[in-house]
This record gives sequence, structure tokens and C-alpha cells, in this order.
Amino acid sequence: MTCVLCNEAGGQLVWQGANLRLIRADEAGFPAFYRIVWNAHVAEFSDLAAAQRQHCMDAVALAEQVLRRQLQPGKINLAALGNVVPHLHWHIIARYDWDSHFPAPVWAAAQRPRNAEREAAVAAQLPAVDAALQQAFAGFDEKQELLAPINK
Amino acid sequence: MTCVLCNEAGGQLVWQGANLRLIRADEAGFPAFYRIVWNAHVAEFSDLAAAQRQHCMDAVALAEQVLRRQLQPGKINLAALGNVVPHLHWHIIARYDWDSHFPAPVWAAAQRPRNAEREAAVAAQLPAVDAALQQAFAGFDEKQELLAPINK
Repeated sequence: MTCVLCNEAGGQLVWQGANLRLIRADEAGFPAFYRIVWNAHVAEFSDLAAAQRQHCMDAVALAEQVLRRQLQPGKINLAALGNVVPHLHWHIIARYDWDSHFPAPVWAAAQRPRNAEREAAVAAQLPAVDAALQQAFAGFDEKQELLAPINK
Repeated sequence: MTCVLCNEAGGQLVWQGANLRLIRADEAGFPAFYRIVWNAHVAEFSDLAAAQRQHCMDAVALAEQVLRRQLQPGKINLAALGNVVPHLHWHIIARYDWDSHFPAPVWAAAQRPRNAEREAAVAAQLPAVDAALQQAFAGFDEKQELLAPINK
């Protein structure tokens, strides 16, 4: 059985580290939708050793902080589901009170029509967001390798 | 403005610590649905200091490990959304391939009718699961207070 996240980046690759990577997803209605993907194939968060879990969540929090600083969203949503692709990945989603689903989860039924103008305004900021993420993540994996026993 | 998670446990209280608590939710169709609630009012995961984040996710992983050991679910789903109640809480949900929504998220549209018999079989195990969680969490907050600067 092949795993799509073992074989492909899984989205627009923003930053690639030795242990994990940051991608930008293409999910209609949610322009600022990123994912941290653990490079090695594990299904569950608790399949990671403690130091690996810490490293993974440091990356999630770092991405969250950059999204908050760059975009001032109304809320950040974090989730590791993996029901369809059981390879550990964390959704990091900037939510706005005007988005089509707020306050419902992005996977629920829409609450209102999409707002193309406001979505486009967020999308226009994504190159700057990606650049800020790349700057924030520079050296992230290398630094952590000194501190933590890492997969493989 | 009052916050329900500042004023109430938020569900069936399974374990109460100094910094966080573990509750069992009552969500139709998903009997093994737990939440780790950070006691202090913060909205976003990255509002926590690094040591607090680590402590919080150690609790999430501990609960996940107990659910996996006790219930052998098909998948664990983790999420911190907080769009409706912006007080940091982590959903920890045991999912099964027979549940009404799998592989969709629990917030999405149902994929099939609920299976009352199999739900009841999981529900029958919850007293043992709660006991195992209480045993696993005994001393959790106290131990961590030695290691980490904690809220308040």
C-alpha cells in the first residue's frame, strides 16, 4: 500500500526539514491553510517519542505564531485527524469570522456563501506569509537535532 | 463576557490537575470523546509558553495512549479549534471504521447510520477507560510543576 505523504510533498512545499516539512494546502474557501507533515510514516501522534512530539508541536506552534502575526486571523484551528491519510500531519488553519464556515469547523456544513473579495485579500498576503514562515523555520530542524533523538 | 470553560468543567470530569483537566464529552455517536482543557483562559495554543505547550501535549499524548491501549480504535483524532468557545481545549476522539462519520471528521456530514450495538459496546468500556486514565494521570501535574514554569 502506498502512502501519498510518503511519496509526495502533499501540497505547496513552503519549507523542508530533515524530520518534518511545512506545506500550504489548496482548500477552497480557506486560503491560509497550512500543514506540518512528519516526514517518516507514523499514523498517530503518540507513535512519536516524547522529544519528537515536542519537536513536532514546536513546529506547529511556530507556524501558528507566524500566521497570527502576519494575518491576524480571528482564530487558529489545529487538527491531526488522518482518517483518510494515516500519516501524521497537522492542519494549521487561519479562520475568520467572515469565512464560509465560521464558527463551524472547516469540515462541517457552510454557514454562509464564500466572500471572494476577502478571500482574495488573504490570498494576496500569502507570498509574504510563506516568506515569513521560511525565515522563522530556517535552521529549525538542525537546531533540534542537537536536543532530541529523532526518527530513523 | 463569561466563558463556559472558565465556569464549568465542560463535561464529565475524569481527572483534575492544577494546570489542566481531562473531561469526557457527551457527543452523540462518539462515545469515546475526551477533552484536555487548559484551566487558565487562553485562546490559542501558542498563547502558552513553550514549557506549558509541552505539558499540555504530554497530557494529550498520554490520554491518546490510554485510549489506544484500552479501546484499539481505528484512528485517534486530535483537534484544538475553539471557534465557539475560545478557551484552549483539545479534542481527543477514538474513531472506528464503523462509526457514523468515518473517515470524515466528526464535524462533517454522516457517512452512514449510527451502529447502536457497537456504540454500546464501546460505551460499556468507558468506566474502565476512565479508571485507566485516572491511573495514568495520577501525579501528572505535580510532576510537571517541578520541570516547567506554569501559568498563574
